[in-house]
This record gives sequence, structure tokens and C-alpha cells, in this order.
Amino acid sequence: MFESAELGHKIDKETYDKEVPQLREALLDAQIDLAKLAKFPVLILVGGVDGAGRGETVNLLNEWLDPRYIQTHAMGEPSDEELDRPMMWRFWRELPPKGRIGIFLGSWYTWPIINRVQGRTKLAELDQSLERAARMEKMLTEEGALIIKFWLHLSKDKQRKRLRLLEKDPKTRWRVSERDWEHYKKYDKFRVVSESVIRHTSTAEAPWIIVEGFDSHYRSLTVGRVILDAIHKRLADADKTISEVSAPPPLPSIDNLDILKTLDLGQQIDKKDYQSELEKYQGKLALLTRDPKFKNITVIAMFEGNDAAGKGGAIRRITGALDARDYNIIPVAAPTEEERAQPYLWRFWRHIPRRGRVTIFDRSWYGRVLVERVEQFCTEADWMRAYSEINEFEAQLVRHNIVVVKFWLSISKEEQLKRFKAREMIGFKHFKITEEDWRNREKWDDYEQAISDMVDRTSTEIAPWTLVEANDKNFARIKILKTMCRQIETMLKKKGIEFKKN
Amino acid sequence: MFESAELGHKIDKETYDKEVPQLREALLDAQIDLAKLAKFPVLILVGGVDGAGRGETVNLLNEWLDPRYIQTHAMGEPSDEELDRPMMWRFWRELPPKGRIGIFLGSWYTWPIINRVQGRTKLAELDQSLERAARMEKMLTEEGALIIKFWLHLSKDKQRKRLRLLEKDPKTRWRVSERDWEHYKKYDKFRVVSESVIRHTSTAEAPWIIVEGFDSHYRSLTVGRVILDAIHKRLADADKTISEVSAPPPLPSIDNLDILKTLDLGQQIDKKDYQSELEKYQGKLALLTRDPKFKNITVIAMFEGNDAAGKGGAIRRITGALDARDYNIIPVAAPTEEERAQPYLWRFWRHIPRRGRVTIFDRSWYGRVLVERVEQFCTEADWMRAYSEINEFEAQLVRHNIVVVKFWLSISKEEQLKRFKAREMIGFKHFKITEEDWRNREKWDDYEQAISDMVDRTSTEIAPWTLVEANDKNFARIKILKTMCRQIETMLKKKGIEFKKN
Repeated sequence: MFESAELGHKIDKETYDKEVPQLREALLDAQIDLAKLAKFPVLILVGGVDGAGRGETVNLLNEWLDPRYIQTHAMGEPSDEELDRPMMWRFWRELPPKGRIGIFLGSWYTWPIINRVQGRTKLAELDQSLERAARMEKMLTEEGALIIKFWLHLSKDKQRKRLRLLEKDPKTRWRVSERDWEHYKKYDKFRVVSESVIRHTSTAEAPWIIVEGFDSHYRSLTVGRVILDAIHKRLADADKTISEVSAPPPLPSIDNLDILKTLDLGQQIDKKDYQSELEKYQGKLALLTRDPKFKNITVIAMFEGNDAAGKGGAIRRITGALDARDYNIIPVAAPTEEERAQPYLWRFWRHIPRRGRVTIFDRSWYGRVLVERVEQFCTEADWMRAYSEINEFEAQLVRHNIVVVKFWLSISKEEQLKRFKAREMIGFKHFKITEEDWRNREKWDDYEQAISDMVDRTSTEIAPWTLVEANDKNFARIKILKTMCRQIETMLKKKGIEFKKN
Repeated sequence: MFESAELGHKIDKETYDKEVPQLREALLDAQIDLAKLAKFPVLILVGGVDGAGRGETVNLLNEWLDPRYIQTHAMGEPSDEELDRPMMWRFWRELPPKGRIGIFLGSWYTWPIINRVQGRTKLAELDQSLERAARMEKMLTEEGALIIKFWLHLSKDKQRKRLRLLEKDPKTRWRVSERDWEHYKKYDKFRVVSESVIRHTSTAEAPWIIVEGFDSHYRSLTVGRVILDAIHKRLADADKTISEVSAPPPLPSIDNLDILKTLDLGQQIDKKDYQSELEKYQGKLALLTRDPKFKNITVIAMFEGNDAAGKGGAIRRITGALDARDYNIIPVAAPTEEERAQPYLWRFWRHIPRRGRVTIFDRSWYGRVLVERVEQFCTEADWMRAYSEINEFEAQLVRHNIVVVKFWLSISKEEQLKRFKAREMIGFKHFKITEEDWRNREKWDDYEQAISDMVDRTSTEIAPWTLVEANDKNFARIKILKTMCRQIETMLKKKGIEFKKN
């Protein structure tokens, strides 16, 4: 794996000085085209061996390119706000928008490798981290991002030499720390782990570029050229329409039976029972969220459903049991300009709360496989990949002791008509029926197919869908409260929910 | 001050039950109008005595209104990311956008009052906090925000009674903590301090509403009605054009002499001196930013100047001396949609970095008093008040051990013409001259007046402007590097720059 990076690559000063001005000019031009087109972001990950020149390389890139349109992120120790969220959150918050370059010194590989070398994690945990990294990169490239991953390598011998050289020079001495020498002692272990990481995560979309780091001329020219070529190639491809996946279509409905049709929407609760059950489960929810252990977990509840199915009312029955200081509701509307410059899930990641809090999404990331699919706001390839991206997103949440509660509120077509008409009659401002509501209604069957596919593909053991029969609002509200209580209770009983580092 | 709130106000259950449904309906309607118009945000601050029902009031508001469009913020202990910035940053990041309601339980008054009652701060420090709070509110109201400040009051006797009542009921017992009783012991001191705070910060734009908190019916109805009336009144006023301030005009230029004309733009440095000075000051800057004490301070450098004055080149000479991991450059462009829904300075506050970092603004918050003034993108009232808002903003930065370095790069009209023409000739993409550049040039005199006023009004002892004679680029770069070094050095020598809580 590292063979070519131990050959002693070297570029003499004369060649270097001749090549650099052209390269810089070309890089600057490419950066301007990238910004003008603003169709995709560039992520440059810089990893490798201590002393192989990671910091110098990043400084040089900032010198060669226009540093105003580069964001450099040293992913050191996470802050307390970052520790409170899944590990990937700190990367999501720093993603460059379309048209910009983000350089990451230390990436989603850094801590998994270090933890493994230090013996703090088992092989299986490392594999899981790599799996997450691979999925993150797949999602990013499918969203259009250009990812360039550099691994700056040094042989053991060369690493010792470099560290000694840096130590000798008073100007660079400060760069060599105790920790570097400690790492050096673990060189062999580090090499084994990182080789395996590179092998597992070098993909067609985002291959690792291994660069010998000893000679700075060779290293700098190589890195600069790889970046230039990669941006050029992607800019040239930017106008090509991405070829649609010709994946098999989702399960066709040939007997007109689907999961929604199996629901008994007529289920009811009588008024007296409703009152006592409401009190009971609101009381329970109040106690659960005030449990001292609740400070270690997070709840994300998500509401989808037919128009007029009663999402707002159900949400109010939940918040009625909570302290206003502890929850936050995110009504999902059209994405803002800043959100449109980012991958699809970015606008949900930004609302992931700190521990000890409840966040309720009124409509959610499932918009992609519902309205966006039915209305053809995105391509089939986009919504087809959304299923696995969403599953991965929710898996990361659950892994971080976040209770993910997902409700689909289902009413019959007749019940919906009744409610639309009633609302038009009363004419309350906050129950206004719009043209769009009537239009959506015409696409009832398309939505039913989309909902059915969504449940099939995203109801997982760790984050199951709860289908709520909502023709009777009271019945729906009790079912929702009960489900919330049960899922929170299960998490509070889980072992090891005490605060832990990622 | 508290007389009316100790009269024993009480509303019987029957009246309450009759009034509430109408009030709720009206509040919901007002909330919908607010969201539709989306012209101003509503900030509700809820302060007062322990046990006076602050939490209950906020919960009730979330029940009465549509909680999906309310953000409730309990401003408890700040996070490490918040402690790294000026105190007001945590409020700026939580400001509701136009059309939304933000409820703050604990506000910019909470910690100043508590710290004073506990004897942790002197009277002068309290006064300074109040001064900052007053300026924040003035800025917010001038930006259009509706601020409603509630103070829920209890007499000493009633506070004891309420705490006892809450303790007796098993359902509410958990709400009374040790700390509440400790606070109770300090009732008299608390009363004196808070009375003085209320007296000093009850302004025409944002008066305190003192509400007796003992009877929950009275308290709830009063708070609900005040909010309803306030939103109604503001909605009715929203279409009125705000009367322009008829302030005296800025200093007129009657003898055609201004600060820019006194600059000797011909100053030069010869090439050899330039090289040695560049090396010297870049080396110095590199050392200063790697000083261990640098971790306790922050640098914000800001570049304004004539078009083609060489801002980009100067910035690169600074970043050339820094480690890419430690700085961030913010090129200031047109505000995004999310930024337009917030007060003017919000888009700069969001980029205030953590400690130990350098942030460079390429153009800045001075756009308000330069291009926005000259091009009439905002009213005279807007840019006139911007001077003091900016001074306050910078004062808050400096108080938090942030070095604020402000450069104006000045070239002559002839030199600009030469550079424009040269750039057109070379035709480098990254030096493109646009129509707009030529248009701006036609307004040279207007800009000169605006720049001169800006320097007069915002060059303060704590954050002075450095006017840079930039006809000779090299001369300008050295002056800038020297200034940066000097200002950072001064801060590093300052006593008490070790990390402290706000």
C-alpha cells in the first residue's frame, strides 16, 4: 500500500521554482470557476504520519489559493456542545457550501485510528467507524461534493529523520511535541492500522491519494496538481446530467393491498377514557422527562401524516406535558438559501439538540421520499438513495442515546374530506385550507405508494415507524403519548446511557 | 416600584374560565398575522422572583400560542463555546427571526442581578451590564423588534407562602430547590438590586411590566393580555413609515479638507527594505500568535478600503505568517435570506471566533456607513444609528480581550485609475474589473465624505482606525503587519487576560 510512497521521491529546487507559478495561477483560476459555478463543494481531507508535512501542506494551499474562499478546520478535541451530539455533527456543521473549499486537518478517520492504535477501541468498533465514514462520503459525493483525501506518508526511518530535522531548527522546534515522539514509538502499530483504514476506505468516488511526505517540493507539487486535476475534471463534468440509476423499481402494488390499507382507522376511544388516559400518560411523560437520567439522553420525535390528520393537535398534547425550557419544535418548511447550498440532510442535522432535550419535527427528512418524490422535486436516484441515507442518519442518532420516535398519522380519504370542509366552514385563520391541500388530495394514491415504500424501507428495529390510526383524534393522541413514553422508558433503562465521549 | 404588585390581585375561576378562550383565540390570530407579515420579531423576557410563576407562565404561553412558532430559551449556565465569546453572543445566536416569537427565561439581566446580590460584582460593574443591556434593547427596537419585559413579583411574605404551597403538593415539590430557599433569605437584597435594575432599564421602547405573581389566574390573564395588546399595536403600526430622525447633519465639508486629504499617499518603501521588513514582521506575528498566552485572546482584523486598494494582497501577507488552523477569513458579501431576517449586526456576530483564533473580515460591518449610506440602501436614520451600534459592538469585543484591528486602505483617484486599467489589460480572472467598480468610482466624493465621517465617529481609543497610505502596496503591507503586531503585543501584555467567566 505504501510502496510507492517510500521510494524517496524528490523534486529539485529549480524544477519546483519553475513549476509553481503556473500551478498557482491555474489553481486560482480553477477556484474562481468553482465559486462562479457554485454547483458543488470541495472537501480536502489531509491525514497521515506526524512530521509528514500536513500542517505545511495546508498552509501552502492557503497561500497558493485565495484563502478568503477556503475554510480550514483543525478537528482537535471536540467542544462540550459537540460531545453532546453524534460524532458526525461537528463535521456537518463545518461542511463547505457549494462553490467553496473546506480543508479538514484531521477528519472522520483521525480519532478512530488514534483510538485503535492506543488500544482504546476494539477492531469491531474501528470497522463501524469506517463504515460510517464510508457512508458519509458516499452521501457527500452523491450530493455532488468533490472529496480529495490525502495521506501524507513517511517510512519509519524518514519519520525519525524529519522529527530530528524539525527539532534542530530553532524556527520549527516548537512543532515537535512529546506526543510526536510517543506516536513515533507506535509507528508500526500506527502503520498497520492506517494501512487497513486506507484499504477499506479507498473508494471509486473518494480514493486515498498517498503522497510521500519527506521532500517538501515533491509533496507540494503533487498535492497541488492532484487538486487542480480533480477540480478541472469535476468542473468539466458539472454540466453532464448524472446518469440515472436503473435500479429495479420499488415493490409494485398489483393486488392493491398495502400497509396503510391494513390499518383499522375506525378505532376509537370514548371521551371519559380519553380524559383519564390523557392525564395518565401526560403525567408519565412529565415524570420521565424530569428523571435525573434524562439529562443523558435526547428525544427526537417526528410527525408525518396526511394533511389535516391532526399533527398539530397531537404535538400540543406532548408539549403540554413538557417544560417549555426543555423542548423545541421545528416546523419543516422550504429550505433557505443557506440550506440549499448544502447536502439534503444538513438542514436537519443543524437542529439536533444537546442532551437532556426534546426536539419535535413537524414534518421531517422524510419529505424527500414523500412530497419530493411524488411532486418530482428531485430525481428518482435522489429519493432512492435517501432511504439508506436516512437509515444511516437515524442509526447515528440512536447510537448516541437519542430516542427516535417516528409517527405517521393516517386518516381515510373520506375523513380528510370531512375535515377540509369543516375547516372551510369555520374559517379559523390557523386552520386555513389552501389550494395546495386540495391538489395533494388528488394525488392520494401516489402518496399511498410513497408512504408504503417509506415504511417498508425505513422502519427499522432501532427506529421503527408507528402508524397511528387517526380518524379519531383522541385515539391517535393517546397512542402517540403511550408510544413516546414506552420508547423513552426503554432508553432510560438501557445500560451505559451515562455520558460518554464519542 | 412594586407597590401595585403587592395589592393582592386576584381573579376568580369563573371569570378566568370565561376570559381565557377568547384570549387564546385572539393570541393565535395575532401570532398568525405576525408570521404572515414577517416584518419584526417578538422577544418576551420573563424575569422576577423565585416562585412567582415564571416557568408556569412560559409553559402557559406555549400552550395558548402555537408552540411550533415559539422558541423558548432558558439562559442557564453558558457552554464552553459561549464562554469563549462576549457575553451577548449567546443572545445573538438565539434571536428569533422576523415573524417569530422568542421567549427568554433568564435574560441579559439575570446574571448581572444574581452576581450583584451574591456580592460577586461591584455597583459599577452592574451599571455597565445595564448599560449594555439598554444598548442591546435600543438596537433591537430600532431594528423593529418588539420587546416585552415581564417582571413577576412577590412580596417577601407571599414568596414564603408560595414556596411552602409548592412544597406541600407532591406534584410540584420537585420545583422547589435548596437554592430557592437560599434566594429567599436574600429577599431584601434581591429586592433592592432588582428595583434599581428595573428603574434604570424601563425605557419608552421597552418598559418593564411588573406583574404580581401570587394568583395564577391574575398573572396569566395579565401576561396574555399585555402580549396581545403589544402585538396588535405593533402590527397596526407596521405599515407606518418610521419618522426619520431630524438630527443635525454630519459635519459638512466647507473647506474641502478632510482626514483622507491629510494622508501622504506617496510614502514608499524600497524593495530591499520591504523584503527584510516583511520577514521581520511576519516572523514576529508568527511568534506572537504561537505565544501560549495567545490561547486566551482573540484577534479580529478588518479591512476596508477603496476598490483596488490591495486588501486581498495585504490579507495574504498576514495569513502567510499564520497557521491555517488558527485563522478564518470572512469575505463580506450580500446578506443571505437568514441574515436578512435578523438585525444588521447578526451576520457579523455569528462569525465571532473562539479564543485563540484570528478572524479576518474582508469588508465588514462598516458597509452600513459606507456603501449602504452612499447607495441609499438604508435610511439616514439607519446609518446614523449604526455608528453607535458599531462602537458598542466593538466595545463588547475589546472587553472580552479581543484585539480589534481596523484598516482603511487609501489610494488616490489617479492610482485607482491606473490599477483599473492595468487589470483590464492583464485580464486575470481574479482581478476582474466590473461595471460596478467604475460606477463606485464616479461617487468618489460621496465615499470620501462617508469615510471621513466614519473615521470621526468610530475611531475610538479601544478600537482605533489605522489609515493606510496604499499607493505603494509594499508600504501598506508593512504598515499593516506592524500595526497588527503592536496591537496584539499590547493585549498580550495586558494584565488579567487569563480566561475568565463573563
